[in-house]
Amino acid sequence: MADLIEPRTLKGFRDYPPALMLPRERVLQTARAVYRSYGFAPIDTPALEYAEVLLGKGGGENDRLVYRFKDHGDRDVALRFDLTVPFARFAAQYVGQLGTPFKRYAMGPVWRGENTAHGRYREFWQCDFDTIGTTSNAADCEIALVINDLFAALGFDRFEVRVNNRLVLNGLLESLGLADKAVPLLRSLDKLAKVGREKVAEEMAREAGVTAEQAGRVLDLAQTAGDNADVLQQAERFFAGMPNEKATEGVRRLRELLAVAETAGVPAGRIRIDLSIARGLDYYTGTIYETFLSDLPGIGSVCSGGRYDNLASLYTKQVLPGVGASLGVDRLLAAMEELKHPRLTGAATPAEVLVVQFDAARLGDYQRVARLLRAAGIATEVYPEAKKPGPQLQYAEKRGFKLAVIAGSQEFAAGVWKVKDLAKREEVAVPEAGLAARTRDLLATR
Amino acid sequence: MADLIEPRTLKGFRDYPPALMLPRERVLQTARAVYRSYGFAPIDTPALEYAEVLLGKGGGENDRLVYRFKDHGDRDVALRFDLTVPFARFAAQYVGQLGTPFKRYAMGPVWRGENTAHGRYREFWQCDFDTIGTTSNAADCEIALVINDLFAALGFDRFEVRVNNRLVLNGLLESLGLADKAVPLLRSLDKLAKVGREKVAEEMAREAGVTAEQAGRVLDLAQTAGDNADVLQQAERFFAGMPNEKATEGVRRLRELLAVAETAGVPAGRIRIDLSIARGLDYYTGTIYETFLSDLPGIGSVCSGGRYDNLASLYTKQVLPGVGASLGVDRLLAAMEELKHPRLTGAATPAEVLVVQFDAARLGDYQRVARLLRAAGIATEVYPEAKKPGPQLQYAEKRGFKLAVIAGSQEFAAGVWKVKDLAKREEVAVPEAGLAARTRDLLATR
Repeated sequence: MADLIEPRTLKGFRDYPPALMLPRERVLQTARAVYRSYGFAPIDTPALEYAEVLLGKGGGENDRLVYRFKDHGDRDVALRFDLTVPFARFAAQYVGQLGTPFKRYAMGPVWRGENTAHGRYREFWQCDFDTIGTTSNAADCEIALVINDLFAALGFDRFEVRVNNRLVLNGLLESLGLADKAVPLLRSLDKLAKVGREKVAEEMAREAGVTAEQAGRVLDLAQTAGDNADVLQQAERFFAGMPNEKATEGVRRLRELLAVAETAGVPAGRIRIDLSIARGLDYYTGTIYETFLSDLPGIGSVCSGGRYDNLASLYTKQVLPGVGASLGVDRLLAAMEELKHPRLTGAATPAEVLVVQFDAARLGDYQRVARLLRAAGIATEVYPEAKKPGPQLQYAEKRGFKLAVIAGSQEFAAGVWKVKDLAKREEVAVPEAGLAARTRDLLATR
Repeated sequence: MADLIEPRTLKGFRDYPPALMLPRERVLQTARAVYRSYGFAPIDTPALEYAEVLLGKGGGENDRLVYRFKDHGDRDVALRFDLTVPFARFAAQYVGQLGTPFKRYAMGPVWRGENTAHGRYREFWQCDFDTIGTTSNAADCEIALVINDLFAALGFDRFEVRVNNRLVLNGLLESLGLADKAVPLLRSLDKLAKVGREKVAEEMAREAGVTAEQAGRVLDLAQTAGDNADVLQQAERFFAGMPNEKATEGVRRLRELLAVAETAGVPAGRIRIDLSIARGLDYYTGTIYETFLSDLPGIGSVCSGGRYDNLASLYTKQVLPGVGASLGVDRLLAAMEELKHPRLTGAATPAEVLVVQFDAARLGDYQRVARLLRAAGIATEVYPEAKKPGPQLQYAEKRGFKLAVIAGSQEFAAGVWKVKDLAKREEVAVPEAGLAARTRDLLATR
């Protein structure tokens, strides 16, 4: 026999066995259903693209992270490191055919050869949705509704969508004559929750060369506290002495978003205006979203995004404004695990019922009754070997099945099936005609 | 402005816009639901692995096709070219924890730098399901049931699962003293449907060096015709003169599979014994499956697989027998398009209803009524800009929406919503309380 190859994965990559994969599929399926319910349509793009298309012509910080190599045709290719750049390329290529507004979602793995400290993986999933081709605030309002409905559908009750508008901060910087220092200032501001006001003010002075008073003005606005109506009123008062069109429009858009969410039925408290959220990068120019789980805020935002003025300027002269957000799938799954979220059952099987194979000659009957349960929407496995029930029931318990369905010669003679609750260790005999209904009841009342 | 980068994809790669992606998601979601209903659990493995793990130590034919390169840590890595090899590695690594039998499905893209002639893509999806860790024929019988239920769930009525067992052919070759020539002989036999008996016999003589009489015997068995009972009876008669254990066991397993399928309620005619199916490779050792659409047999098998003796011998001494099959997603989608399958609607949106944004000040109400429809399971988009209804209705028709929901000041005053059927160009006014029910009715009766 040849030497064996050690079965192993690359550093920073991981396998998903069923116990990890079942929750991931549940999260993705929920996101898919909510995105679709709003009319976002799925698209997909290749994992592998021309390096030039993904990285542009300059050498940005992504260059170091990206998996890049020469293919069989000596083309310079790379694995996508996010879903935004391929979407920009896609939009530039097809927007003429597809028309605008265009609403899309995309889900898939991306690859970054990053440092694997802090539990970072080199392959991870993104799950984005965007509306492009419109500057209408209606699209911005909708993103907040989608995030609300998504987390509600995922079974969360206590969460908060924090919303800001970059126009408000940018308006202030403009009024203070600091517009050219927006990047370092907002990057510092992003650290406010972590390091506090004093350290941010120091960093603003050091990195952007602003005065203590200027830093103080930015921080005063960012730290405006109170309920949503208060915060917006204070922001208006803040700008009363130095009228600024951008800031006025930013506040108007935030106000409209709140009104639409309220009329549309989003529960009070779900959306909170937070003028300190900046999301550092240049990219965002309008509404900004972050989402926090109230029981685990420390894990950071689990769904973030914002409005941008121009998606695809690398590839087309057509200006494509848009707004969108991205669900942090891996972070959310980690949070659900830490919170012992009720939808994470720990089961390693998607089926709830195991049909014990007691008598090999009855395999057709076992599969017949399993198909009857499947047709009623109850996932049902038939144990693939005929052996004593003991080991089959152990298998069922270990995998996380809830009920076992059992029939031997006595049951076949009597025309019944025994249904055993594996946790309560109770069993009932049920005629076949009533089996699906009874099984559904037993699953519902466990 | 910097020079623009031409937005383009690599040769052999393609984008999936909504009109392609919606059917793909539908097929994958149906497969997922059917696999799960039988207790197959999802797993996932990385796209990128050690080249040695994927390719073994020798230089097989996969070496030329695989995308292989050095990563940042100078590791020799490669993109997976199928889902079977990673599953073998996964099974070797975790089978001790997971236990057997183990039923899994996996869905995802794989990459092969192949010739792109004949519409072949270099990135395509596989969609596999397998039961490993058991030699029981119950697992083989189940694979046929899964395939049947899968195609029925996909909306196909006219299809045929062709089943053979390699034990029958191998038994014959053993009896004829040709066991060592199985590979070239079965590879020739695979071409029977395409090139006919005479050419196969010639190739068998030429490639495997068998006599015309030997080739004739193999072809006689393979071409056994008749209904399932006939074929099995003829096979038994064929071997009556030269008893062979393997062939006897193969026939017994096929007979059992037919009996189980019948008792389990698979419609007659769905499963057909075809002794000519060989599926060339060494890999398969028992039951073999191919699936043909009766209205488009020429496209080839759309779901194929079989039983194997040992999945993971490259990585572990533990013998892991199993049986499984793979849905040919891209081939199936091409077939559905060619057949104008009713589930391929051609729509570019997952939503059926568009709420026209007539009056910007009413955006909250439009989203409220949209959320009301979404809560009733009806995907509903709100047009993101307030403008005249005309262009909004054109957008709705172009994307494939079915109904438009419209309200201006008159309707708000009257407390009703107008629902317009976009194909019939008929509209009705409905009070809000009855809107969800009426919309559902209108969608159901279109």
